[in-house]
Order: sequence, then structure tokens, then C-alpha cells
Amino acid sequence: PTRDVSPLDPAVAARLKRDAAGLVAAVVQQHDTGEVLMLGWMDDEALRRTLTEGRVTYWSRSRREYWRKGDTSGHVQHVRSVALDCDGDALLVRVDQVGAACHTGDRTCFDAGDLAAAVANPDGSSGDP
Amino acid sequence: PTRDVSPLDPAVAARLKRDAAGLVAAVVQQHDTGEVLMLGWMDDEALRRTLTEGRVTYWSRSRREYWRKGDTSGHVQHVRSVALDCDGDALLVRVDQVGAACHTGDRTCFDAGDLAAAVANPDGSSGDP
Repeated sequence: PTRDVSPLDPAVAARLKRDAAGLVAAVVQQHDTGEVLMLGWMDDEALRRTLTEGRVTYWSRSRREYWRKGDTSGHVQHVRSVALDCDGDALLVRVDQVGAACHTGDRTCFDAGDLAAAVANPDGSSGDP
Repeated sequence: PTRDVSPLDPAVAARLKRDAAGLVAAVVQQHDTGEVLMLGWMDDEALRRTLTEGRVTYWSRSRREYWRKGDTSGHVQHVRSVALDCDGDALLVRVDQVGAACHTGDRTCFDAGDLAAAVANPDGSSGDP
């Protein structure tokens, strides 16, 4: 790092509990409907850009590069708020999502992924799958 | 692993993209209000238990043990649905949360963590921090 690059606020950086790759998880939620849109990953620089640009930037683990959502697809995420969780390893980013959040064209990355699960009965006990 | 332990459905296991520690991230959301409550971690066995017991079980990275939410605190999470994301590295678990989700006593683990962020202007352009 050089002095030319504006760093993430040191007070924020000190609160992050990064994984072995230097990343924290970012849960992204549509600010008004509450839909959970996707999960991405951020290092310090991706978080700095997200906090200062009004747009969400991730670190792509597969491509090993920064990725500002919507630059290619047009499916921009406008930042509404960012919160860090109690132990510093996850962010909740509330956004206004333009178009689909998922690269498949689905509104969210979880739309096609329902798993069969036993659900709680009305009395709170567990039920059958 | 022995044959005595019922394994995770192989069709589900085949879709998981685990990290180096064998884990996927689990975003936990209150099913009716849409609140994002917390982020936890699951290995195959934690997911199997979550899908079959009607209660959410995590793998604790710090304690290196399974942890069924609410067994100690009473703050039980009753499973309503579980979905896997498009690339298999994140789960969305919708629950009915009893009491506080956060060990601090806050309703969610993100309640105390707001970071200063530039937000989008109404016209969609980025604003000042």
C-alpha cells in the first residue's frame, strides 16, 4: 500500500475480523422490501469503496479482482446503509437494487435454491420433513 | 464418519461450495418482518441437523463445536425455510426467532454496528458521506 491510496477509516478497520483471505461476508438486502438479495465478500478496500461511492463493490474470490455491481450488467446497487455485526465478520448492506441481483436473471440469488426442510409446527415443536 | 450417522442428502451435498474450512455462510432472517438477524456458519452436518430438526444448528468456528441456537439462551430459532444460493456458498435460513438473536441482547447482530456511508441521492447518483 502506498500513501496515495486513501485507506479505510482506521476505526472501522480495527473492528473487522477478517478470514484467512482477508475478507468479511457482506449480506445484501433490498432496503424497502427486506428481500435478501445475495451474499458477497469484501476486503478493506472493497468496503472503503462501498462506504464512499454510494455503490457496492465486492472482492471476487474466483476472479481475484474488485467488482462494482452493475458496471457490466447495469444491475446497480445503490447503498442505503451499511452495518457491521457484533463480532466484526459480517456486514449488512441495505441497497436499492436496480433489476435482478442474481447473474441468472433472478431477483435474488436464493430464488431457485429452496431445500426440503422440516419446519416448526405452530406449537413450536419440530415437524416432519 | 460411520454408517450410523445419517448423512446430509447427497443431492444437497453435491451443490455446496464449501470454503477451505468446509463451511458455507448462513444468513438468518426473521420470516415475517424480513429482519436480517445474524450470519452463522454451517458444515454438512450442521446443515443436515438444521434441515431435519426444525431448529438451527451452526458450527462455531471459535469453539470448534456444533451449536444449536437457543439450547443455552432459550433464544431458539424455529426453521421456516432454507434456500441455497446460485453458486452454493451461502444459505438463507428463514426462521421464527424467539427473543434476541444476538448474544449482546440486541434483536439482531447488526443493530449496534452502523457505519458512516455515502448514500445514493434520489436521482440515483452517489452523494457525499
